Amino acid sequence: MFKHDPSDHQENLQNGYPPLKLVNRKTETERTVVKVAGAELGGPDIVIIAGPCSIESKEQLWAIGKSVKNSGARILRGGIYKPRTSPYSFQGLQDEGLQLLSWIRKELNLPVVTEVMDPRKLELVCQHADMIQIGSRNMHNTPLLTEVGQIRKPVLLKRGMAATIDEFLFAAEYIVKMGNEQVVLCERGIRTFETSTRFTLDISAIPLLKRLCHLPVIVDPSHGSGHWWMVPWLSKAALAAGADGLIIEVHHDPTRALCDGGQSLLPDKFQVLMEELKKLAEVMGRKISV
Amino acid sequence: MFKHDPSDHQENLQNGYPPLKLVNRKTETERTVVKVAGAELGGPDIVIIAGPCSIESKEQLWAIGKSVKNSGARILRGGIYKPRTSPYSFQGLQDEGLQLLSWIRKELNLPVVTEVMDPRKLELVCQHADMIQIGSRNMHNTPLLTEVGQIRKPVLLKRGMAATIDEFLFAAEYIVKMGNEQVVLCERGIRTFETSTRFTLDISAIPLLKRLCHLPVIVDPSHGSGHWWMVPWLSKAALAAGADGLIIEVHHDPTRALCDGGQSLLPDKFQVLMEELKKLAEVMGRKISV
Amino acid sequence: MFKHDPSDHQENLQNGYPPLKLVNRKTETERTVVKVAGAELGGPDIVIIAGPCSIESKEQLWAIGKSVKNSGARILRGGIYKPRTSPYSFQGLQDEGLQLLSWIRKELNLPVVTEVMDPRKLELVCQHADMIQIGSRNMHNTPLLTEVGQIRKPVLLKRGMAATIDEFLFAAEYIVKMGNEQVVLCERGIRTFETSTRFTLDISAIPLLKRLCHLPVIVDPSHGSGHWWMVPWLSKAALAAGADGLIIEVHHDPTRALCDGGQSLLPDKFQVLMEELKKLAEVMGRKISV
Amino acid sequence: MFKHDPSDHQENLQNGYPPLKLVNRKTETERTVVKVAGAELGGPDIVIIAGPCSIESKEQLWAIGKSVKNSGARILRGGIYKPRTSPYSFQGLQDEGLQLLSWIRKELNLPVVTEVMDPRKLELVCQHADMIQIGSRNMHNTPLLTEVGQIRKPVLLKRGMAATIDEFLFAAEYIVKMGNEQVVLCERGIRTFETSTRFTLDISAIPLLKRLCHLPVIVDPSHGSGHWWMVPWLSKAALAAGADGLIIEVHHDPTRALCDGGQSLLPDKFQVLMEELKKLAEVMGRKISV
Repeated sequence: MFKHDPSDHQENLQNGYPPLKLVNRKTETERTVVKVAGAELGGPDIVIIAGPCSIESKEQLWAIGKSVKNSGARILRGGIYKPRTSPYSFQGLQDEGLQLLSWIRKELNLPVVTEVMDPRKLELVCQHADMIQIGSRNMHNTPLLTEVGQIRKPVLLKRGMAATIDEFLFAAEYIVKMGNEQVVLCERGIRTFETSTRFTLDISAIPLLKRLCHLPVIVDPSHGSGHWWMVPWLSKAALAAGADGLIIEVHHDPTRALCDGGQSLLPDKFQVLMEELKKLAEVMGRKISV
Repeated sequence: MFKHDPSDHQENLQNGYPPLKLVNRKTETERTVVKVAGAELGGPDIVIIAGPCSIESKEQLWAIGKSVKNSGARILRGGIYKPRTSPYSFQGLQDEGLQLLSWIRKELNLPVVTEVMDPRKLELVCQHADMIQIGSRNMHNTPLLTEVGQIRKPVLLKRGMAATIDEFLFAAEYIVKMGNEQVVLCERGIRTFETSTRFTLDISAIPLLKRLCHLPVIVDPSHGSGHWWMVPWLSKAALAAGADGLIIEVHHDPTRALCDGGQSLLPDKFQVLMEELKKLAEVMGRKISV
Repeated sequence: MFKHDPSDHQENLQNGYPPLKLVNRKTETERTVVKVAGAELGGPDIVIIAGPCSIESKEQLWAIGKSVKNSGARILRGGIYKPRTSPYSFQGLQDEGLQLLSWIRKELNLPVVTEVMDPRKLELVCQHADMIQIGSRNMHNTPLLTEVGQIRKPVLLKRGMAATIDEFLFAAEYIVKMGNEQVVLCERGIRTFETSTRFTLDISAIPLLKRLCHLPVIVDPSHGSGHWWMVPWLSKAALAAGADGLIIEVHHDPTRALCDGGQSLLPDKFQVLMEELKKLAEVMGRKISV
Repeated sequence: MFKHDPSDHQENLQNGYPPLKLVNRKTETERTVVKVAGAELGGPDIVIIAGPCSIESKEQLWAIGKSVKNSGARILRGGIYKPRTSPYSFQGLQDEGLQLLSWIRKELNLPVVTEVMDPRKLELVCQHADMIQIGSRNMHNTPLLTEVGQIRKPVLLKRGMAATIDEFLFAAEYIVKMGNEQVVLCERGIRTFETSTRFTLDISAIPLLKRLCHLPVIVDPSHGSGHWWMVPWLSKAALAAGADGLIIEVHHDPTRALCDGGQSLLPDKFQVLMEELKKLAEVMGRKISV
């Protein structure tokens, strides 16, 4: 009565693909737990990742990092290599941001996740970060997927903005096939005709991915909407739909942010949201990881 | 810092449209409550509408209607004029279904909502139904919108499968402009490249519509996904995102349903869902209308 | 080696639809020719339809009608019932435009095509027009399709802006099934993420529809782009892709047009285009109908 | 009266981007000509690129290469690093294919274009190929764009399957900004809701890109449709819409092709198509480069 069935490994053949072998769920209860320092994604607890879109300075990173930790974030996000539409936009601090990553994770005792786009930077970044993000614009970048499949750090794999669920799962398969089973899937909005939001958050992807695949599934409500005021609503919706975590952009001075200020929550609004999520998680039979 | 602002009545001018005048929210607290018999949509309580996609027979209608009422549905849905892709598919009982509508609402003391596609049928259907649905395929049908703007029954307006938020609001404006202010907006999934689900439920539409417009907003998780097993997840997500209600397809024998069986919940699963929704509504500071 | 095969009447079953019975091509050479007064669509010659988006006045209609006839248009287009996004936009002259239709077709000895949205207007409009257009926003309006299936006028059926090829063909099947075989299909752009153009003209639809179906296929480059300067390029592309005709918006004073001025060609540019199309048609082994 | 205007360098600001500086057209006549060995793209003549999707063997490459050269192709295409959805699909000959590239370009005296996905392979591939392709899945890969901006080989930049025209132009800007002005833009179909074709060829992109930008614009009708029988129709449409060239997949044994056989033309059908294109080019005031 429904199209996808985890017991049917042949389903992808309908689309002309060979079947998934590794990331597809084989039993009702199969689940992978991905550990990032002390945080466990895909287990019973819900993990919140938060931080600025881009790392801009020591002061900015400290202000935001401290506040999101106090509010209960278990992992700090912060980009240093930014995939911008225009070459004239701020491209991130690049290599200079690496020391800031190392510094903040030690100071706050909080693991950090950051995006890598260039396979030549991977080894270097692994020395400064706890989790490697593959961004939406590189989900189809198979050499990069193959490369992160060979490291021993967990990977946050974002769905391509025009990737089908099948393609998303195969991107994860590229990584796991190379030996790295610590992969977290992240729904972050797809490109549709609707322009009121930056992307269209595909809320259905959450139950679908969790049914088809044993990897943890989290949601990025910031890129998924492009509007800070919408982030709390989408965060709650994501948890209610079964997400194992969230990655949320927070900025203490969003109007001056060098990137994506319009979709960043102020720290006090993030604090309020965390309180609301705690109650919601309970109703879902889970709790927010602390 | 965000594009849409209810205080800015001129925003639609950006798209070349004259501004909305009636359905746009003018103050922070402005809200319309739509009354369907005793049920109030858009107030503090959440209203659940449930029933079969199509009315097939007296027996089917009774079996499903009784069970959804017992589970807590406040309004019964049931189509008699069905907009099918193929002319060779079951088109609904047509006029013969009208007596069944009158019979069931009286027997169960439950208001009914049913779709009208042809303006020539509107007066007749108004004698048998409590709420008139304008389906996704007719959201742009301006003569029909103008016509339901002149009746004294509440209207359930579904978003066109390729309608932007702006276009959706203007469709509501067509109705309200004619004098009928009792309009409920329904997000039911939009057409995107993703084919794992029948449509892509646009969860962001809920907070966006509630910010821009004072009309109640409900969600159809059945058409929004096309998979019955996904309906509970999307129902919870919709409530968490601020929806004022849900419209859910329920069938007691979905494999033999003449329409959309694959997305219909069995009555016992609907019962379980209702219990879950009660707890979730509480966390959201609301309750399920009884 | 390709998905669609006209010899396989069962293909739609893959999508859960009953098969097409009437509009699908059964032999390599089967073709329907639709006659609108003297113009023959679907035969060896290419038919150009042109005129204003909306009829605004006698003077406007005369100026435009005369010029497009002189340039070689075989059918005059002109809307009197306009499906506008906003109820505050010009809705067309409505019933008052009917006499203008009758007048111009007689004065210019040119058949006219106009859109009908309301089934209650159909009989009336048939007295004044030679061809009835079903617009993109009403392609899924099955009562209207059923109604035009019972008249004895040719029908111009526009593709819904979010309709798949399958759904488009089934809409035509609704009409033909009722007895009216004089149906012309019109590709007019689909809704996608790209916003540089008003819609995305689906050029592939032309060879695909002609392979699957025996009805004539024409293209609307005006709505398909939304930019007048792009119309000549898309017109030529459509002919090169095998289209049987074009429907082009022309206005003598586009900056003051009450509807869609930005996508309307000036009469002299339309004249230049017609000359170019004549040469192109020849290379395609056809000619522009005169 | 139209949105895009090459004289308005500020237009991208509407989308929050800094303006284009280099690839945007500043005068009516500004045009860049890209030279690949003797072939000139963007000049008066139309250049046809053809060859297999993947290079599979010496025999295959010779058979196809010889036939497309004889038919008039000026550049040979052939992938050795293939971006496949599944890691279990054929990934190309990888480094082993490099010698085949060098061999065939010398044997046939025909320049070759091949895709690079990994910046670490770029220097190596430049020793064996005449033009470097950046594929649709890597259009947003800014480190790769930056890297090809520093070589002295022409670049064939394919539009991302979900990239807007703005994003496409900015990707080209990344390359040109680094000093490499020899960039050819390639429209290859975008992702939409329509599934009858593999992608939806955006024919409007051709006149739009040529109006906004001075770089040559070519079209890939093979990926744009996914159906070999549709390739001739789309090829003709592309030329009629103003394209400066085509890149067409040809295979002598498509049912046994290791990649994309269903969209590959047989050599004799390619030969017929070339004859037709010659006549069409003439009507467009151009000719096929020989």
